[in-house]
Amino acid sequence: MKIGVLGAGQLGRMLAIAAYPLGHQMAFTANSKDAPAAPLGRTFVNNNKHDAIKQLTNASEVITYESENTDVEIVKEINKTTDVYPGAKSLFTTQHRGREKAIFVKLGIPCAPYQMVNSLRDLEVAVEKIGLPAILKTATEGYDGKGQFVIRTKNQIEKAWQSMSGVEAILEGFVNFKRELSLIAVRGLDNSHKYYPLVENTHHNGILRLTISPAENISAKVQKQAEHYMQTLLDEMGHVGVLTIELFETSNGLVVNEMAPRVHNSGHWSIEGARTSQFENHVRAITNSPLGETDCLQQYCAMINIIGKHGPVNKVLELSNTHLHLYGKTERKGRKLGHITITANTLNEFKTTLSALEAFMP
Amino acid sequence: MKIGVLGAGQLGRMLAIAAYPLGHQMAFTANSKDAPAAPLGRTFVNNNKHDAIKQLTNASEVITYESENTDVEIVKEINKTTDVYPGAKSLFTTQHRGREKAIFVKLGIPCAPYQMVNSLRDLEVAVEKIGLPAILKTATEGYDGKGQFVIRTKNQIEKAWQSMSGVEAILEGFVNFKRELSLIAVRGLDNSHKYYPLVENTHHNGILRLTISPAENISAKVQKQAEHYMQTLLDEMGHVGVLTIELFETSNGLVVNEMAPRVHNSGHWSIEGARTSQFENHVRAITNSPLGETDCLQQYCAMINIIGKHGPVNKVLELSNTHLHLYGKTERKGRKLGHITITANTLNEFKTTLSALEAFMP
Repeated sequence: MKIGVLGAGQLGRMLAIAAYPLGHQMAFTANSKDAPAAPLGRTFVNNNKHDAIKQLTNASEVITYESENTDVEIVKEINKTTDVYPGAKSLFTTQHRGREKAIFVKLGIPCAPYQMVNSLRDLEVAVEKIGLPAILKTATEGYDGKGQFVIRTKNQIEKAWQSMSGVEAILEGFVNFKRELSLIAVRGLDNSHKYYPLVENTHHNGILRLTISPAENISAKVQKQAEHYMQTLLDEMGHVGVLTIELFETSNGLVVNEMAPRVHNSGHWSIEGARTSQFENHVRAITNSPLGETDCLQQYCAMINIIGKHGPVNKVLELSNTHLHLYGKTERKGRKLGHITITANTLNEFKTTLSALEAFMP
Repeated sequence: MKIGVLGAGQLGRMLAIAAYPLGHQMAFTANSKDAPAAPLGRTFVNNNKHDAIKQLTNASEVITYESENTDVEIVKEINKTTDVYPGAKSLFTTQHRGREKAIFVKLGIPCAPYQMVNSLRDLEVAVEKIGLPAILKTATEGYDGKGQFVIRTKNQIEKAWQSMSGVEAILEGFVNFKRELSLIAVRGLDNSHKYYPLVENTHHNGILRLTISPAENISAKVQKQAEHYMQTLLDEMGHVGVLTIELFETSNGLVVNEMAPRVHNSGHWSIEGARTSQFENHVRAITNSPLGETDCLQQYCAMINIIGKHGPVNKVLELSNTHLHLYGKTERKGRKLGHITITANTLNEFKTTLSALEAFMP
């Protein structure tokens, strides 16, 4: 099929690399001809956004998007002539933290207590209700830790509100967690589901740096619990494609933090680590093809992000059990430039390789 | 690096899919905008061949090619300004069966007896020397069994010569073989070498249909012997990139049939079956990067070609241990449209999956 992607970053690039072997052809909208995915398909540059989207739609049999910050109205408009997956309901829900939390609550999925905040007064009330510490986040458009303010004492309330620049915000109670996990799943048009194993994520300055897959010491019961939460979300939204949920592991069990209606950085390990990658499964889902198995090919797998600077990437190629993925971007502080996958069958080999890649860790 | 490829077929397409994750950018020359690799990089259509090559060279930091039928003079011309790998010596040798045989003889590599043939009289003399049955082949441009005539009796000699349409030919003695094998290896600019395991190939009407990797019952001694032949060839030609040799297994040991200065259909299994694919290793070699390990990830691997018609490709996606690779080509008798990789850890799983894919076999 002809697949159109709104956006042409690294996610679009990796979707393309997965889609061509299945016989599909890719097209993108991009802010610039230098976008990571641009060399991998027809690319309509957003000089005039409306025109670029129209050109993409005309060139495509099915449309998907890279970001939950995609305009829902655009998706609805495209959907009048061309199927868009995931659909508007998934997008509308996941691009607003308040709506996300509401669906968690509705479905009985544990999440942090929260209050929507539209003014300093709202925030003061919310702090009274939820207590401190708490995190104030913009309701929309936040990613990689941007648009967040941790309030530890009451005298930070005003500064926190000012940092939101007047946009709608959400105050979330602080969750005492042991570690951060994520679950990636895919749902097909035929309501089939596949789940990847829970993985463990390590962030630094709000940016994902390391994913371990599968996460250590996850009982079958915990995996099933996470899959149950995921399934209720997939079905409630009628989601088609990959959905990611980020979770906290706490002494009281799993607490869901947020979700993304797309392939996710914490699933990049699946390119070499799983039988079918998250990218291939997203493509399979939106093209109404059978979903692929999600089991791990090796016992240990990790993904290290390359952030800001490329660093000693040739070292990565010298190691026998690593795979390099660069996105074709120029260096810039905090920018995701690529990632490294490590696969190993013994813990010793795994740890040795992780150590050898220390230069890529903060 | 900016990598230019002369040609834009499925080999260029799979080179591109391997090259982007390493941070490289691809460009191609193509006979048409519909070529398999065209969506995966800048493509210069050969309306005026000279211009297209010039444009490719200007857009590239290193050049490689898809076919041993590439014009050596073009490669030499490009090489004045831009490195071309494999070099002119590899190309010149491998595009002519007589020169190929001569290098085998020079290096003490067993091959079939042969005589060059430029006339009916030459052919008569050659048949006297070599005996029957024997195979008459065009000296150049042959592939997938094209340009070949098996001479079984003397009264076929004239017809055989006529079938060559007057071009230079080679008469080769018939080799009684148990099975056909191939060996793929890669040599870096730093003279490093990596070898894939010997694989077993099954042809039908001159076209590869099935590769089993690794070939069953290959002793370490036989693998070493094949690697030794390969190494002498790589070093003699100063080859950079992937080189493939096709061999016969006979009761007297290995006999080398022919070679190709490129990634090869019998190496497509390596995309999922080996730690580093032949495509990635070719890219690593020509960009002066460290070569990747070539060991197999699972115990059993096979590659089935999809020839002529796409057939029930959705069935392939329903099987758990297969990977589909389509080349974006239209159906045509005898055309290579794609391939399927099977990986398995048990013989039972392997055989069951091969059986399930019977529809793709002749």
